[in-house]
Amino acid sequence: MKPSVDWSLYLVADPQACRRRTVDEVVRLAVAGGATVVQLRDKKSSTREYLQQARRLHDVLAPLGVPLIVNDRVDVAMGAGCEGAHLGQSDMPADVARQLMGPDALVGLSVDTEDELLAADGEVVDYVGVGPVFATSTKSDAGAPLGARGLRRFRSRTGLVIVAIGGVQAANAAGVIRAGANGIAVVSAICSAEDPQRAAAALRSAVEVGRGRGAPSG
Amino acid sequence: MKPSVDWSLYLVADPQACRRRTVDEVVRLAVAGGATVVQLRDKKSSTREYLQQARRLHDVLAPLGVPLIVNDRVDVAMGAGCEGAHLGQSDMPADVARQLMGPDALVGLSVDTEDELLAADGEVVDYVGVGPVFATSTKSDAGAPLGARGLRRFRSRTGLVIVAIGGVQAANAAGVIRAGANGIAVVSAICSAEDPQRAAAALRSAVEVGRGRGAPSG
Repeated sequence: MKPSVDWSLYLVADPQACRRRTVDEVVRLAVAGGATVVQLRDKKSSTREYLQQARRLHDVLAPLGVPLIVNDRVDVAMGAGCEGAHLGQSDMPADVARQLMGPDALVGLSVDTEDELLAADGEVVDYVGVGPVFATSTKSDAGAPLGARGLRRFRSRTGLVIVAIGGVQAANAAGVIRAGANGIAVVSAICSAEDPQRAAAALRSAVEVGRGRGAPSG
Repeated sequence: MKPSVDWSLYLVADPQACRRRTVDEVVRLAVAGGATVVQLRDKKSSTREYLQQARRLHDVLAPLGVPLIVNDRVDVAMGAGCEGAHLGQSDMPADVARQLMGPDALVGLSVDTEDELLAADGEVVDYVGVGPVFATSTKSDAGAPLGARGLRRFRSRTGLVIVAIGGVQAANAAGVIRAGANGIAVVSAICSAEDPQRAAAALRSAVEVGRGRGAPSG
């Protein structure tokens, strides 16, 4: 059965962005602070290293019920027994990934434009990563920021789960949720933080504030 | 059922090495000249491009009964419906690839040392790519050439199908077969050839000569 996912705080764990600690340390701390989903993104390592890293993280996350999603590499996701794959527009088409991974896998898709959003098939894709919401230095090839207004427009065009990415921080996360995102995704806001657990906790609180619930009790 | 494969002439089609023609053209011509297996190797393209290229080649090769093997990317191989995957020592472990691809897929493994050869599991791997047999400029990170003597030593240590790679040309291919290789693999000898069909035919003839059969009649 497809796992039920809390999309509130989605960490994109990228070794390139983890300057102070290993990816493993960052992920452990982020989850302790309140991250609810983790994506492993590694554009540099060999397939074997990517697979080994995914397995290590999955060993940590599976007992906690936190899904692990692998960026781009459906083979790595499947080989490491991960919960899903996240696909960009130049990665494997989502329907092919779905066919390989089966109905229970989580399949996510990055959409930067309304055309890409409307092309995303709700029968195939579990969520869309929408961004950049704000200006960001992590992805230098990203388009112009959507802002809260653009995010609202996207929200009005789809019933899919939206995870908002790009320049999201504790200071603006509540507004992102109010604009209609189901969750926020961050890279450097946690990976590069001096204290990833605290950074995650602050982001998670902001998400709950955006939902009008105040800080989480847990 | 696993396809029965003629390993005689194994073309590694790499866009980086195809300087005069497209990969599609090179592959068509090589098969017309006598190539019996094709591997697509692309270390540069996006997953989507790799998948599209694999599909295009598979459309050409499947009706001819020539298996298409994808380098490194098990997901691309599976997504494009290819016959197999070829794995290096830093790619996905062969047993994981076998598990994902099923019993009928062709799984190949590059081995550069006797230790790697002895570690190759005959229950998992269909063939080993052994090399470099001779000095080659295509893979600058390759180890010292094995020569015919090294190849004979490898032959004496395994019952697996050996495809010999690295600096193999029409002039030395017969000796490579006599040293115990089941087939020869080439990159630039075909990809960079002025006339890939003629280059393939010359290589194929040399393989048959090495087997003591003279040139193929077809």
